[in-house]
Amino acid sequence: MSEISTERGRRPGNPRTRESILEAAMAAFARHGYTKTTIRGVAREAGVDPALVMHFFGTKDGLFDAAVREGGIPVTLLREVIDEGVDGLGERLAMRYLRLWEDPELGPRMHAVVSAATSSPAAAGLLKEFMRGQLIRPIADRLEGDDAEERVLMMATQLVGIGLMRYVLRVEPLSSMPLAAVVAHAAPNLQRYLTGTAASR
Amino acid sequence: MSEISTERGRRPGNPRTRESILEAAMAAFARHGYTKTTIRGVAREAGVDPALVMHFFGTKDGLFDAAVREGGIPVTLLREVIDEGVDGLGERLAMRYLRLWEDPELGPRMHAVVSAATSSPAAAGLLKEFMRGQLIRPIADRLEGDDAEERVLMMATQLVGIGLMRYVLRVEPLSSMPLAAVVAHAAPNLQRYLTGTAASR
Repeated sequence: MSEISTERGRRPGNPRTRESILEAAMAAFARHGYTKTTIRGVAREAGVDPALVMHFFGTKDGLFDAAVREGGIPVTLLREVIDEGVDGLGERLAMRYLRLWEDPELGPRMHAVVSAATSSPAAAGLLKEFMRGQLIRPIADRLEGDDAEERVLMMATQLVGIGLMRYVLRVEPLSSMPLAAVVAHAAPNLQRYLTGTAASR
Repeated sequence: MSEISTERGRRPGNPRTRESILEAAMAAFARHGYTKTTIRGVAREAGVDPALVMHFFGTKDGLFDAAVREGGIPVTLLREVIDEGVDGLGERLAMRYLRLWEDPELGPRMHAVVSAATSSPAAAGLLKEFMRGQLIRPIADRLEGDDAEERVLMMATQLVGIGLMRYVLRVEPLSSMPLAAVVAHAAPNLQRYLTGTAASR
């Protein structure tokens, strides 16, 4: 470990060095997207040698993985509203999810994750794992019925579609609608997937 | 025009040359995504000089634009079901839209468009223009109420979210569900946006 030196002479084992690389990576993924972000560019931003970035994170996928896991989306925020129970969950989840997108720090990171997932199978795998662990399973566990998982997945497609069209593609007038109006439109549909009449098969 | 010659000696004015470039471009965008597709690579696939590709299409964005407009998504297929009226439109549209994704030729093109739109503002603009002209406006024109456009946009977020999660990210078990099951889950929610009780504001 310690034989790798940095341009600024930081110690590679220093957790603050790792942290500053992660910060630079999150900013780069958010600003340039997954495909155009390079290990070299992140190293330059962080003021370290590219070898040190590879030492900590291995590959660009490893760096992306760490950026999403450690600095990405505060998953506990979703768990909180899920833990309040299934009644009214559609509305609470819509509100919380949209606020994550509107957060000036988190929004660009979520944009970066979605953009990366459509062009990199590794990033797609990561997003899927995140959705499964933090959203799909915790909610499905609270529902009745054989098709609970299917219904939660359908609910997730609605949330993901709003994120993509309102915040990534910025389709008007959807992007300019007040947050509360979007929630009012979407909440009954989200709730129907969760607890409404099961779709006929 | 005619001073530009091709490697295979085709005449640049030949519409079949332009067509073969477009075919190569659609295949490349579908296989490699927007970011990794290059004018040079498309030219090589089509067996022509890169200068000829630029002669016809200007830039990569111009090539993408033409690939989507001329060879992309057969928009008349959506217009057909819209023209049958608003009753039951949610179900008909879901069925038709999912079949476009499942088509072995069209599916990869739609994948390429979505992937491009998350990383290129030009491609995003094109997708938005397409959605507005072929989906949002034609349906909104048939609905009552001041919030008709908002409701159609919300319906579109649901369709887009299904496309992204089922066909691009391939989230299981959503990707393996029978098409009819996805339609059965989604249709009532799509229809609610169109003709159901308006969301409270």
